[in-house]
Amino acid sequence: MSSFRDDGAAALDWVASYLERVREVPVLAQVEPGAIRAALPDSPPDGPEPFTALLRDLDDVLMPGLTHWQSPRFFAYFATTSSEPNVLAELLIAGLNQVGILWRTSPALQELEEVTLDWLAQLFGLPAGLHGHIEDTASTSTLVALAAARSVRPDARVVVCSEHAHSSVDKAAKLLELELRKVPGDGEFRLRPDLVDLDGACAVVATIGTTSSTSIDPVPAIADRCEAEGVWLHVDAAYAGAAAVCPELRDRFAGWERADSIVVNPHKWLGVSTDCSTLWTHRPDALRDCFSLVPEYLRVAEEVASLSEFSQVLGRRFRALKLWAVLRCYGRSGLQERIREHLRLAEKFEEWVRTDEAWEVVAPRPFSVVCFRLRGSDEDNERLLERVNATGEIFISHTRLADQYVLRLAIGSFRTTEDDVRLAWDTLRREAAVL
Amino acid sequence: MSSFRDDGAAALDWVASYLERVREVPVLAQVEPGAIRAALPDSPPDGPEPFTALLRDLDDVLMPGLTHWQSPRFFAYFATTSSEPNVLAELLIAGLNQVGILWRTSPALQELEEVTLDWLAQLFGLPAGLHGHIEDTASTSTLVALAAARSVRPDARVVVCSEHAHSSVDKAAKLLELELRKVPGDGEFRLRPDLVDLDGACAVVATIGTTSSTSIDPVPAIADRCEAEGVWLHVDAAYAGAAAVCPELRDRFAGWERADSIVVNPHKWLGVSTDCSTLWTHRPDALRDCFSLVPEYLRVAEEVASLSEFSQVLGRRFRALKLWAVLRCYGRSGLQERIREHLRLAEKFEEWVRTDEAWEVVAPRPFSVVCFRLRGSDEDNERLLERVNATGEIFISHTRLADQYVLRLAIGSFRTTEDDVRLAWDTLRREAAVL
Repeated sequence: MSSFRDDGAAALDWVASYLERVREVPVLAQVEPGAIRAALPDSPPDGPEPFTALLRDLDDVLMPGLTHWQSPRFFAYFATTSSEPNVLAELLIAGLNQVGILWRTSPALQELEEVTLDWLAQLFGLPAGLHGHIEDTASTSTLVALAAARSVRPDARVVVCSEHAHSSVDKAAKLLELELRKVPGDGEFRLRPDLVDLDGACAVVATIGTTSSTSIDPVPAIADRCEAEGVWLHVDAAYAGAAAVCPELRDRFAGWERADSIVVNPHKWLGVSTDCSTLWTHRPDALRDCFSLVPEYLRVAEEVASLSEFSQVLGRRFRALKLWAVLRCYGRSGLQERIREHLRLAEKFEEWVRTDEAWEVVAPRPFSVVCFRLRGSDEDNERLLERVNATGEIFISHTRLADQYVLRLAIGSFRTTEDDVRLAWDTLRREAAVL
Repeated sequence: MSSFRDDGAAALDWVASYLERVREVPVLAQVEPGAIRAALPDSPPDGPEPFTALLRDLDDVLMPGLTHWQSPRFFAYFATTSSEPNVLAELLIAGLNQVGILWRTSPALQELEEVTLDWLAQLFGLPAGLHGHIEDTASTSTLVALAAARSVRPDARVVVCSEHAHSSVDKAAKLLELELRKVPGDGEFRLRPDLVDLDGACAVVATIGTTSSTSIDPVPAIADRCEAEGVWLHVDAAYAGAAAVCPELRDRFAGWERADSIVVNPHKWLGVSTDCSTLWTHRPDALRDCFSLVPEYLRVAEEVASLSEFSQVLGRRFRALKLWAVLRCYGRSGLQERIREHLRLAEKFEEWVRTDEAWEVVAPRPFSVVCFRLRGSDEDNERLLERVNATGEIFISHTRLADQYVLRLAIGSFRTTEDDVRLAWDTLRREAAVL
C-alpha cells in the first residue's frame, strides 16, 4: 500500500496543480484529429509500468487533446464544474467500488441515493413523496421515463415535444419506436400549447431551460392537457433545474411538480461531475412494472425493491456519494450563492451586448445563458466563433434560432468570476473588430 | 486550493487505510433495511460543512451499510477489483471532468478510448479493425447491439438466446419490443444449436461465461447458423472475456471473432471499477445508422464521427483513462498472472469440494467460478448460504441449475489469496457441520 500512498499523493498533487493552472490553458483543444492517437503506442505494454509514467504522459501526450471543461473560461454548451468535494468523493467511490445490484449488495449505496434524492427534491421545492433515483445522463433518464409512459399506454405511440426539445428525446423515441410529434415554438422559443395534438400520445416532454436558448415551456398549460387526457408528462430540466434551489427563481418552474417524471442533471450546474442525472417520478410503480426483472441468481430473502428495478441498467455506481458530498460541502446557501452569482454575471454580459449597437441579444434570458450575435451575416458570426475559440482564451458554442446562426455564452462554472466574463466580452469584441 | 490539498490527503489516507483493513471487515453488510436511511438527516444542511465531516460519517454512519466488494473474501456474483491504478485514475477523471459529446469537446477522451479499445482487442487476440467503444455496463452494451440488429432487420422481431443468458438480454428485448426465444441448454448449460430456430430472428446472443455457471455456448456452430441466415450475432463475454488475455485459454473463445458485436466488462475481472463495459463491432455503420443524430447546436467543422454517434447516450465520462491506467500499470503479463492465479485457486477449491463426499461440484468450471452444493436438500443449502454470509467472514451467492439450489464461489478479486479461499472452504464446512 506504500506505493498507493505515494502514487496517490502524486495524483492528488497533479489534480490540485491542474485546477490551479486551468484558467491559463487554452480552453478548446487545439489539436488536429488523429494527433493524440498518433502520439500513443499502437500496442499495450507487455509488462507493468509505474503510475508516475501515466502522470507524465497525461502532461506530455494527452494535455494538448483536452478541452478544459474545468476552466472558468469555458462558456460553451452548458458550463459545468467538478467541484473539489466532488473530486474527492469520486476518489472515495473508486476506493469503495460499491456495486448496486440488489439492496444487499450495498445498502448504504441504495439508501444514500434515496436520501440524497429526497434532499435535492427539498432543495428544489418539489413535493414530498416523489420516488427518485440516479441515472448516468438525461439521455437515459428521459429514455426510462418514456419507456414507462409507453408501457402504461401501449397503444399510444406518439411522443409530443417542442421543436426546441433536446435531441435525446428524438433518440429515445427512435429506440422506443415511438413517433415524435414536434410542436412549433412561439417567438420566445416556448412550446405552443394551442398547437398540441394529443391524439395517440403516450407522453409529452416539456422543457424548462431548452438547450439552445434555455426557454421555458408553459408547463401548467401542458400539465392541464396531459391530466385531462391521461398522458404522461415528462419535464426535462436537465440544465435549469439546479436554479430551483433559489426560491426567487421558482416561478420559472411553475407546474413541474405536476409532472409524472422530472429530470435534472446535477452534473450540469450543481458542482457534480459527469455523470449524475437525477430522475423523480410520482409513478414509481409504472417504472417498476416496466423494468423489474429479478432472475434466480439475484433472488434473496429481503423484501426490499432494488433501485435497478426502476431502470434499464442492473449495476449502479455509488454516484449518490458525490451528490451527498456536494450537498453537504456547499449546503443550501452555498449552492444558492453560486446560482445567483451566475445569473448576475449573465445579466451583466447581456447588458454589455445590449448596449453595444454592433451586437444584439436574440432571446430572453431566464437563467445563465445569453444568446446573442454580431449584427451581420451568419457567416460573419460563424467565422467569429471559430476565431474566438481558436484564441484558446475562451470557448463558446452556437445554435440556430429563428433561422439565424446565434452565439451562446453559458455561465455555469463555480470558478468563473466577473473578470472571466469580462475577458470573454473583450475577446469577442476584439476578434469581431478584426473580421 | 489549500483545503483541497488537505482534504485530499485525508481522503487518500481514508482510502489507503480502507484497503489495508478491508480483509478484516464483515463482507456482507449486516444491517436491516432502513437502518442507514434512519441514521442520516432528513434534510440537507443549510450551510457548508467541512469535507472531514463527510469522512467521519463515512466511518460512523455508512460503513455498516457497505458490502465490501473490495474484500478479498468477496466471492459472490462475480468478484471484482477496483485496483490501485484504477482508483487513482478515477481521481484524475474527476479532476479533469472531460465530457465526451463531440470529438472537439475532448479529443483526448475520444482518441484514448479508441486506442485503449484497440489495445484490449489485441490483448484478447481479437482481429484488427474492430470498432470499439465504452458503455457503462453490459446491460447497455447488449441493448445497443440489439438495437443495431433490429435496425438492420426491421421486420425480424425475435432475439434468440439460451435459457442461461443474462437477464439484461430479457430487459433489452423488452425495451426494444422484441420477442425473446429462449433455447434450452444441454447438460452442461450450453445453448443447444440444434434447437435454434432463426425464423424471424434479427439477433442471437451467445454467451461465453454465463452468469450462473460460466458455461460456454458453442459459438462456432451458432456463428455458422447466423452467417447462413444473415442474423446478427452478439457475444456476451461480460465476465469471462478478461480470460482471453491468456493465450492458453483462447480455446474457450473459439468463434467470438466472427460475432457482429462482443461485450466484455473490464469492471468485472480486469481491475477496473464499475462502470466500464467495452463493446466491439464489425459493423460500426449499423450502430451509427441506428444512433447518430447531430442537432444544430452540436454541428461543427471537423468531419470526425463522435463516439456518441454509436450509442444511446450523448455525454460520456473519461472512462478510457482508468482502462488505460490498468492496462499500463499491470501490462499484459500482470493481467495474465492474475487470471492464471484465479484459475489456480478455483481449481484448488473445486478439488477440495470434489474430494469431500459431503459436497458435490455441479457444473464444469471453465473459468474461476465453482458451482457446488452440500449433498442434501435445497433448503439445507439455502440455510447454509444465509449462515455463511451472516458470519461476515466471506460472501457467496447462489443460483439454480438443473432445478437445484446451487452455491457459487466466484474468484476474481486481485487481492484474493489462497488463504482467503481456504478460509471460505473452512467457513463453509464449519457452518455445514452446525446445520
